[in-house]
Amino acid sequence: DSKLKVFSGNSNRALAEEIARHIGVSLGDAEISTFSDGEIQVRLNESVRGADVFVIQSTSYPVNDHLMEMLVMIDALKRASAGRINVVMPYYGYARQDRKARARDPITAKLVANLIETAGADRVIAMDLHAMQIQGFFDIPVDHLLGIPILAAYFREKGLDDVVVVSPDHGGVTRARRLADRLGAPIAIIDKRRPEPNVAQVMNIVGQVEGRTAILIDDIIDTAGTITLGAEALLKAGAKAVYASGTHAVLSGPAIERLRSSPIREIVVTNTIHVPEEKRLSNLVILSVAPLIAEAIVRVHEQLSVSRLFD
Amino acid sequence: DSKLKVFSGNSNRALAEEIARHIGVSLGDAEISTFSDGEIQVRLNESVRGADVFVIQSTSYPVNDHLMEMLVMIDALKRASAGRINVVMPYYGYARQDRKARARDPITAKLVANLIETAGADRVIAMDLHAMQIQGFFDIPVDHLLGIPILAAYFREKGLDDVVVVSPDHGGVTRARRLADRLGAPIAIIDKRRPEPNVAQVMNIVGQVEGRTAILIDDIIDTAGTITLGAEALLKAGAKAVYASGTHAVLSGPAIERLRSSPIREIVVTNTIHVPEEKRLSNLVILSVAPLIAEAIVRVHEQLSVSRLFD
Ligand SMILES: Nc1ncnc2c1ncn2[C@@H]1O[C@H](COP(=O)(O)O)[C@@H](O)[C@H]1O
Ligand SMILES: Nc1ncnc2c1ncn2[C@@H]1O[C@H](COP(=O)(O)O)[C@@H](O)[C@H]1O
Repeated sequence: DSKLKVFSGNSNRALAEEIARHIGVSLGDAEISTFSDGEIQVRLNESVRGADVFVIQSTSYPVNDHLMEMLVMIDALKRASAGRINVVMPYYGYARQDRKARARDPITAKLVANLIETAGADRVIAMDLHAMQIQGFFDIPVDHLLGIPILAAYFREKGLDDVVVVSPDHGGVTRARRLADRLGAPIAIIDKRRPEPNVAQVMNIVGQVEGRTAILIDDIIDTAGTITLGAEALLKAGAKAVYASGTHAVLSGPAIERLRSSPIREIVVTNTIHVPEEKRLSNLVILSVAPLIAEAIVRVHEQLSVSRLFD
Repeated sequence: DSKLKVFSGNSNRALAEEIARHIGVSLGDAEISTFSDGEIQVRLNESVRGADVFVIQSTSYPVNDHLMEMLVMIDALKRASAGRINVVMPYYGYARQDRKARARDPITAKLVANLIETAGADRVIAMDLHAMQIQGFFDIPVDHLLGIPILAAYFREKGLDDVVVVSPDHGGVTRARRLADRLGAPIAIIDKRRPEPNVAQVMNIVGQVEGRTAILIDDIIDTAGTITLGAEALLKAGAKAVYASGTHAVLSGPAIERLRSSPIREIVVTNTIHVPEEKRLSNLVILSVAPLIAEAIVRVHEQLSVSRLFD
């Protein structure tokens, strides 16, 4: 019966601590620092021999540092004879480079999967992967958790009337359908078309939004261009209010400026990525995925059927 | 007969351009940039189908970004059907984490080797690896180039009298011997001992330095603590002047301050690592490894015997 141990990388210690609290353990004693020249130094200050180890690390900004931290941590754990190494990635960086969109593109999401396996991971727990196909990039088991139930619970409790769930693009319709099911709401789709190259996009809305409260749902909110433009199009089409929601709050570049000057009422995200203080807009709601991830870890550790959680 | 193509990462474009010039080709057309969230984007703007490709990248600061650039580049080249992918690493980051110095240490130099192979490299050309054992971390061929002939030629041309080549520690004696052979000089060793924990190190000099011009030789000049303390000990022991030399100019943290206030006459390094303008002290001499690397690339490409260059 191997001991459960939870370690954290530096990307999101607050989440890791919350997860550990939910499980009822304290975080394993490890330091990840850098040498003077910026090289990562990992020190495991406790034995992990034979243990069932969970390493919690989001590969969010700065993605290459956080990825390398995770790989070096896995290497150290492996050489210290950990029993099983489970990598918990609340946010999986490089997920959008999941296919050759152009000739000679890399497929970095697959490269990352290979790197994680090569380092010595035995299992991955991920959340809301940008493409479900990324599970297939691994030859080790991948448990895939969904944020939709957490977002849905929040919106249900708000008791909004006449909701329509809106996908900001064609790729996100399944996600919108999942949220809509849980809210008993219809869906709509923002149907972007570029009639000619170098001509502005036309935003056509497929579905009924007039007089309704629209909830825009995406997986990643990065520069926030998609949702802020989408929100304007929805209001122009007669929506009475717009909420925006997404699991992963990347919020890079112009995101905060765009959200600040946007008519979106609330932006509802989760804490898979640590949001620094200066990006916490007053209408940014951050829900915790810690209970969900904690439950997944406990079930994986107990080798119980995890199907209820993972579909 | 496959075409030779040379591509560069972002770590040391000046060196890559110099190498390409020596070979008589222009650098391949590729861009390595970042998306808004800091993820690396690689664009290969020309066909590499069937080509014998050489990717030049030092994994110097910021090491994780430069390493990941290289891995993504390899992935893109592989998927674009490059004939053979040769990775040229003038500086190999993480080389000092080459063994478990303490319990539960990672062996990151080995991890890096695995990552490079996993990404799809077919061959590696490296220079002055911190430990020769790193060649054995790879299952693909590694050509190992030495900087000593370049440094030796510089010192020979200076025509210094009564030279003694000094190893700053026990680990570097073989390197000192190599340089001394080429200069027809004797060697000395700085024999550091810590009599008790938390007591200052004692620097004992093994060998004759009195009245001689000492050349301190190391592989990596990082924080410059070793060589600046060594230089003081040598002068105290009666050396008439001290030069310091090392292939890789990491120069992190306090290095520049230490060198500026040190009595070292000249610091002689190479351009395996790009030295930014603000670190170019007036007594820092930077020798080019471009001719050596260019020759290695041409020979590897021609599949000729490379033994003369690589021992
Ligand atoms: N970090 C990133 N930031 C912005 N765009 C990206 C990023 N990574 C990949 N992409 C691009 O996003 C597209 C994939 O997004 P999607 O079509 O939503 O799956 C591809 O064209 C990629 O080139
Ligand atoms: N980037 C680095 N900066 C400073 N020290 C390092 C670095 N990487 C590894 N080390 C340490 O340097 C020692 C190896 O150096 P050496 O004994 O000269 O081979 C080990 O104790 C490592 O922990």
